[in-house]
Amino acid sequence: MLEIKLIPQKEFERIHNADLDKHHKLELIGDMCRANALATVKRAGSGHLGSSFSCLDIVTFLYYAHMNTVELGVGHQNRDIYFSSKGHDAPGHYAVLYSLGIISQQQFVNLRRLGGTHGHPDVHIPGIEANSGSLGMGISKAKGMAIAKQMNGWSGRVFVMTGDGELQEGQIWESLQTAAYQKITNLQVIVDYNKIQSDKTLDNIISLGDLARKFESFGWHVQRCDGHNFADLENSFTGFDQIGDKPKVLLADTVKGCGVSFMEGHRVLEEKDSLYQWHAGAPDDDAFEAGYTELFERINTRLGEYGLAHLATELLESREKNRAKLKDTAEKVVNAFGDALVEVGGQRKDVVVLDADLSADCDLRPFENAFPQRFIENGIAEQDMVSMAGGLALQGLLPIVNSFGVFLASRANEQIYNNATEGTKIIYVCHYAGLIPAGPGKSHQSLRDISLFGALPNIVILEPCNAVETKWALDWCVNAAEQSCMLRLVISPSPRSITLPQDYRFTPGKGAVLNEGADAVLFAYGPVMLNEALKAAELLQKDGFTLKVVNLPWLNRLDGDWLEEVVGDCNFLFSLDNHSPYGGLGDLLLNGLMASPALRQKQLEKFAVDDFPACGTPPEALHYHKLDGQSLAARISDATNRK
Amino acid sequence: MLEIKLIPQKEFERIHNADLDKHHKLELIGDMCRANALATVKRAGSGHLGSSFSCLDIVTFLYYAHMNTVELGVGHQNRDIYFSSKGHDAPGHYAVLYSLGIISQQQFVNLRRLGGTHGHPDVHIPGIEANSGSLGMGISKAKGMAIAKQMNGWSGRVFVMTGDGELQEGQIWESLQTAAYQKITNLQVIVDYNKIQSDKTLDNIISLGDLARKFESFGWHVQRCDGHNFADLENSFTGFDQIGDKPKVLLADTVKGCGVSFMEGHRVLEEKDSLYQWHAGAPDDDAFEAGYTELFERINTRLGEYGLAHLATELLESREKNRAKLKDTAEKVVNAFGDALVEVGGQRKDVVVLDADLSADCDLRPFENAFPQRFIENGIAEQDMVSMAGGLALQGLLPIVNSFGVFLASRANEQIYNNATEGTKIIYVCHYAGLIPAGPGKSHQSLRDISLFGALPNIVILEPCNAVETKWALDWCVNAAEQSCMLRLVISPSPRSITLPQDYRFTPGKGAVLNEGADAVLFAYGPVMLNEALKAAELLQKDGFTLKVVNLPWLNRLDGDWLEEVVGDCNFLFSLDNHSPYGGLGDLLLNGLMASPALRQKQLEKFAVDDFPACGTPPEALHYHKLDGQSLAARISDATNRK
Repeated sequence: MLEIKLIPQKEFERIHNADLDKHHKLELIGDMCRANALATVKRAGSGHLGSSFSCLDIVTFLYYAHMNTVELGVGHQNRDIYFSSKGHDAPGHYAVLYSLGIISQQQFVNLRRLGGTHGHPDVHIPGIEANSGSLGMGISKAKGMAIAKQMNGWSGRVFVMTGDGELQEGQIWESLQTAAYQKITNLQVIVDYNKIQSDKTLDNIISLGDLARKFESFGWHVQRCDGHNFADLENSFTGFDQIGDKPKVLLADTVKGCGVSFMEGHRVLEEKDSLYQWHAGAPDDDAFEAGYTELFERINTRLGEYGLAHLATELLESREKNRAKLKDTAEKVVNAFGDALVEVGGQRKDVVVLDADLSADCDLRPFENAFPQRFIENGIAEQDMVSMAGGLALQGLLPIVNSFGVFLASRANEQIYNNATEGTKIIYVCHYAGLIPAGPGKSHQSLRDISLFGALPNIVILEPCNAVETKWALDWCVNAAEQSCMLRLVISPSPRSITLPQDYRFTPGKGAVLNEGADAVLFAYGPVMLNEALKAAELLQKDGFTLKVVNLPWLNRLDGDWLEEVVGDCNFLFSLDNHSPYGGLGDLLLNGLMASPALRQKQLEKFAVDDFPACGTPPEALHYHKLDGQSLAARISDATNRK
Repeated sequence: MLEIKLIPQKEFERIHNADLDKHHKLELIGDMCRANALATVKRAGSGHLGSSFSCLDIVTFLYYAHMNTVELGVGHQNRDIYFSSKGHDAPGHYAVLYSLGIISQQQFVNLRRLGGTHGHPDVHIPGIEANSGSLGMGISKAKGMAIAKQMNGWSGRVFVMTGDGELQEGQIWESLQTAAYQKITNLQVIVDYNKIQSDKTLDNIISLGDLARKFESFGWHVQRCDGHNFADLENSFTGFDQIGDKPKVLLADTVKGCGVSFMEGHRVLEEKDSLYQWHAGAPDDDAFEAGYTELFERINTRLGEYGLAHLATELLESREKNRAKLKDTAEKVVNAFGDALVEVGGQRKDVVVLDADLSADCDLRPFENAFPQRFIENGIAEQDMVSMAGGLALQGLLPIVNSFGVFLASRANEQIYNNATEGTKIIYVCHYAGLIPAGPGKSHQSLRDISLFGALPNIVILEPCNAVETKWALDWCVNAAEQSCMLRLVISPSPRSITLPQDYRFTPGKGAVLNEGADAVLFAYGPVMLNEALKAAELLQKDGFTLKVVNLPWLNRLDGDWLEEVVGDCNFLFSLDNHSPYGGLGDLLLNGLMASPALRQKQLEKFAVDDFPACGTPPEALHYHKLDGQSLAARISDATNRK
């Protein structure tokens, strides 16, 4: 059995109150937070350890030895404020907040669960000062807080942690420029300078060059230090308080994964052919045990040296080792996309693939390896990537632009519009579309992307439901479409492989009936929601209610004749969007019904992700939004009985 | 009478072929292009002279003395490419293209007219290589073109002009960082360093600091020169061709408005209490004549010195002097907003107003002057502004964030989303909403802003129709709304002052009947479209057809009972959006009709701005999109007869 254990909060109090050298104490607390972060990530099945560990000593130092926040209370107007701009270091930050009694044990141990803590910071969690998780916004926001403190006449400093890869975002440089000009002196930025991005080094993605020189040229006071050396941190931060005329930045040299030997930054890269594997995701059982043991042995050895008792722990969970996981066997549409991309690249020499440091997640590596000359790694700079794609297209190439939908559709929105006005053809791939996985939280779940592309007059939006439809969709975008396209793709393993009818032909505006039925029609798309739709049909069938389930992958094209045919005599129609209720399939169908005299009297009810998306496991999030099969069956049943 | 004259293309040929010192020749051509740009801007009634004139000598140099573009032809794959990233220097660029015979006279003289040239560059105009007008995208796009040239095996360099204020956009720094890392050596950037933004100096908005040092710290080769000295330009550009390992940037010191003494940069600022007035808009008749005379006298004096005949010109237009203009007398909702903002600022000490260098256009100056401590000028850095607003709101203040809708809703979209997830209250004001004015073109006309905010679960979107409703709307947003709001405001003078019913109460989800009618109902909002709606009603009335015209300022809130009441027995419903047909009032009504069993059978036809917005005068653009009163009357008549 695998045991996942927690170091309870009272153990942190014991160490904190022990008669120990202050830096030794901080070292112990930092490692204890590492152990707890590791436990919660393992329990959650996902989370970011590498960058939690690289900045954990700094966060520990700030809360335990530098800021007034714990003393004054996290609601006090004069408190020092700390938050992380990069946000994926949340497990480490939560561990520190838990160690101080700010987050309850119940909430802390439920990382990425409904009612627990979110995969990325959320202000509804005690002690969290700002939402982050999309990169590059933190200094701007900290600047607003710092100015507000001045306007309100409140004291306290504002500390914000950024990643180093994050500095590739243009907004960072906007915020540096304005903070210096606006003379925001109660603002301190820390760069967690671990020199590794998702899985490659900064210098293998987009080098930052001479970072200190850059910051200085933007008018900032720069200090560099060892981010794992508490004496060095103390000197640096104390020194900052003497600088009264400039905003300040600490370039803290850190080690990604610091504290667990086999997760440690460059050491791993040297051994593992230049791919770092501890950025995201939980370690497997063996790695978890090895890491946990290493941390515990080091802590307990030191406690022994200091004449203190070994750590007490609480058992959080005991589970069968190496249990089978869906993701190891299930179909993933993103892998079908990755394969199809290589095929397309072989057929068409004008295809260029662009990436913003999510190559592995978006399954671009096969293309990257097969056609390195036509793969452009652009770093975490989506605006630049999209406008560059515009330039490539103006010169006759066919760019395929990739990122998570929540970033691509939103952050580069005006650049996408600008490209669209030029009438060139570009394929945008919005990965990680929709509600699932729901663990990373609102910064990553993409529920607005259709609406963000929807008002472009010349773009086709589509989401395929399985591997084969993904290949058809990419092929259609590349070879058949005359205009730009937006392909939205689920990133999780498909809960079931959707079976398409034998006679189905992938045709603009037309879908496929997946389950015959006469009592109501439910339109949906994509593997996540079609699975729930089919579950609902199965449940309703038991009550003798037959639900026609229709896959409609075209999200802004609708064939009126096909719609009339598929609806037929049925009066109860439902749409199921893996998206906000605004601007998705539901609204497309409303327009389609209004356009048809035969269908104008029909009743359509829209199911969609109302409100901001919940954070939790897939079943938790689907159930929370009443979009799981069982809830859908009940809602359909209610709606048809009601009328 | 006022005479507007053109220097015909053959006069440029004459000078170009004359036996003259090459730099003297370029000086003449530059000034001749200034005169023609001035004529077209005067004829159009708007356009950007200050920044056309500051970079015109550089553009002249590139086309006449440095690039191979004219020789090879603007469609040749090996041509040198030039385009402007800032884009508002288009009148000057068009003048150069016309002088070379690339743009026809017919198109050139019709600046900002349907079928003429656009207010900002558009690739459908001969010789224009990229669409711009929204700032900060150009280097990225040029980078794409430059890489494409390498991939395609095509020669030629890519030159891109940026403004200096434009460098405040974060995307610039993304593009600098990636271009250096990607070793894009066939790329040359020119900064038109005139040191003045919309109407204040860079140093009075957001200083750029030591610009050369910044570029160098980003890995670029930097050269500085006098942008009005052709020998200096020649040396600089020739030198660039010797630098093979880096992208290159020329910091060209220029004078905004150069060539017309009273428009010249710092001279004007010293005299005019620090506001520069020649950034945008046509000069009045006296200023036009003074400027034109000054240019002509200088050119002809020089021609005389060189033994050449004086310039021949063609009369373009002769018009009454000082004719009355709508904009001098008409109501402007943006002014009502500016006044209301001062009132609100006096009442509530927590109100903070943010601007991104559009203070005059958005009528923020009264607030800026009344409450300088609560006005934050953030420069052209919308992402930073919006996230900073998030920080202010987290610390208990009420930020009111201003920019043009096309920039604010789009460029800062992810930052707006991030703020929304924190549940704070922020008021976003999308100025320049909708189709009109249509002269600046697609980069400025905001027809997607509702859709870009629409999927945020906790934001109210509204557009008022006249001065008093604007005050009510701002007051509601500030004092009544619990959530964030997006206020969209037309920027043009209202074509008529809309009269609201005496008993109208500004209430969420409810509108007002402006014209009674029984044959059909037309829902619209805002001064531009309600004017056309009322015109349509007036026209239809003549045929005995009565059209009920309803003002509905709430764009994502709809009161079902009110809707049932206002529709009554009428079966023909129409919506009129000053927006894309996607996601606006039409779709709101479709959802409202579906939600009401009494209204589900009603027929709704959506009128909206289909396709990208046309560039032209307001009547031209409205007519092009069939949204003028006459077209609407015809469409309504057709639709009701058809069924």
